[in-house]
Amino acid sequence: MSEENFADRLLTAVETRRSHVVVGLDPDYESLPPEIRAAHPGDAYEREDLQRVACYRDFLVGLLDGLQAEAAVVKPQIAYFEVLGTQGYELYMEVVRMARERGYVVIADVKRGDIGSTAEAYARAHLDIAGADAVTVNPYFGSDALEPFFVRARERGKGVFVLVKTSNPGSAEIQDLLLSSGEPLYGRIADLVSEWGRETLGAGGYQAVGAVVGGTHREEAAGLRRRMPRVPFLVPGYGAQGAQASDLRGLFDERGTGAVVNSARAILYAYRKRPGVHWLDAARQETEQMRAALWRAAGRG
Amino acid sequence: MSEENFADRLLTAVETRRSHVVVGLDPDYESLPPEIRAAHPGDAYEREDLQRVACYRDFLVGLLDGLQAEAAVVKPQIAYFEVLGTQGYELYMEVVRMARERGYVVIADVKRGDIGSTAEAYARAHLDIAGADAVTVNPYFGSDALEPFFVRARERGKGVFVLVKTSNPGSAEIQDLLLSSGEPLYGRIADLVSEWGRETLGAGGYQAVGAVVGGTHREEAAGLRRRMPRVPFLVPGYGAQGAQASDLRGLFDERGTGAVVNSARAILYAYRKRPGVHWLDAARQETEQMRAALWRAAGRG
Repeated sequence: MSEENFADRLLTAVETRRSHVVVGLDPDYESLPPEIRAAHPGDAYEREDLQRVACYRDFLVGLLDGLQAEAAVVKPQIAYFEVLGTQGYELYMEVVRMARERGYVVIADVKRGDIGSTAEAYARAHLDIAGADAVTVNPYFGSDALEPFFVRARERGKGVFVLVKTSNPGSAEIQDLLLSSGEPLYGRIADLVSEWGRETLGAGGYQAVGAVVGGTHREEAAGLRRRMPRVPFLVPGYGAQGAQASDLRGLFDERGTGAVVNSARAILYAYRKRPGVHWLDAARQETEQMRAALWRAAGRG
Repeated sequence: MSEENFADRLLTAVETRRSHVVVGLDPDYESLPPEIRAAHPGDAYEREDLQRVACYRDFLVGLLDGLQAEAAVVKPQIAYFEVLGTQGYELYMEVVRMARERGYVVIADVKRGDIGSTAEAYARAHLDIAGADAVTVNPYFGSDALEPFFVRARERGKGVFVLVKTSNPGSAEIQDLLLSSGEPLYGRIADLVSEWGRETLGAGGYQAVGAVVGGTHREEAAGLRRRMPRVPFLVPGYGAQGAQASDLRGLFDERGTGAVVNSARAILYAYRKRPGVHWLDAARQETEQMRAALWRAAGRG
């Protein structure tokens, strides 16, 4: 069984929708549009978690239905589902399925990492059972712990994004530690990601083992693009975390592709900056603005 | 609200049951005792996941009821629950609750790690909602991403075990990378763990921010014990992964405490090495052997 290479599917999705936008599905109850919460009054539910799950479902289905022209990729962040317990986990699985049915490429943002047999269980849980197209993983254990993900990238059309340089202010504390070779730790991880994905190269010139590279570190990110020319980037940090489209120019290749850029809060809760606009229209406008800004930053128009 | 320091609770649990054993709850369907599987024939269930969850529940409740004299701590590995989807996630939460009701210290082995608001959701999901006493976390993001866990260690009697040196063969690939200071990466992480836990010191001399240190690296582990004298260790790698009690001597302090040692497969599936013995008796015998061997290795008798 051999499905189409993940990197090729990702590149095609970007070209088809002319969009590098990844919509981060990070539902937060307090930030939901008031009309979503009003449609599910607390006293209509036996338990708070059930009420919240009902709100999240309406909200996320709305987004998935409404953003198909503007975004090619969605990234459910599982922490925001786990925090609602069992019902939240069920909704996570439902959201992955519904997103795939609507033609999105789905990156499950789970950042898992563990030893062999446990990593195998995680890979099955998220790539096989939940059915995501790709997952995010943490490299700290080393490559033997990532092999269950890599084998699915080599043989089953799945993708893996390995944390290289994250977008948080404290990322320097560990990731920038200087190695005896004179390079920072994240540089070494970058080289390993290139190596790990060598056997997953698609027809479009990119491999199915990608890298998470925060958009908040302009210089480092451009350096990483040059260092990993065949590695697709998943870029967090846009919007609410501070990165602008112009900061991201260096993350795209000379064809204007090779990176997809995530934004969550700025899209999901865009209604807060647009009084009088329906929340979904606001999300759509925000996504379209981001799409156009990234398309220009990628030198595409 | 301030509950008793986690490190103190952990030390007390070890003394009370005279046991450094952590029972790793890593259920694997194919390895279950035949009588557990026979009690839940596939055709009695609508779906395979429901049948497996029923088997896991019987098996885990049996272990929790049966090992209370031999083990003080249990460590559910969430990957083996996630792989059964929503019903598996529900069972994970149930197992945490049932273990706490039976007086075990519960370490949820989730190895989470992510940026601020996401880390907060993970900390809530596993420490507040599922209600574990402690969790395992990955340090790659840096300390700002771990703060939601640390605040619960400082203020709510919770514990955190940070990956320092893992038990897998490939751990050297990243964790042993030599820094410009001349030390390996894991040594720097060890120093950070000591710093991060400074404000969580309990009356027993240990802090509530601990370290995961694989028992399969005898020399490194003893060095880490000296380097982190106030940091409690969670030690994987015993039994099925190859470490013996004598390998672990260096992980205990001069009082014979400061480390708890995990074994999963060797205990859970001990019936396979003991033909004719009931699976739970086999698990109990294996745990008692391990308990006694560790007690001696710790210089306690």
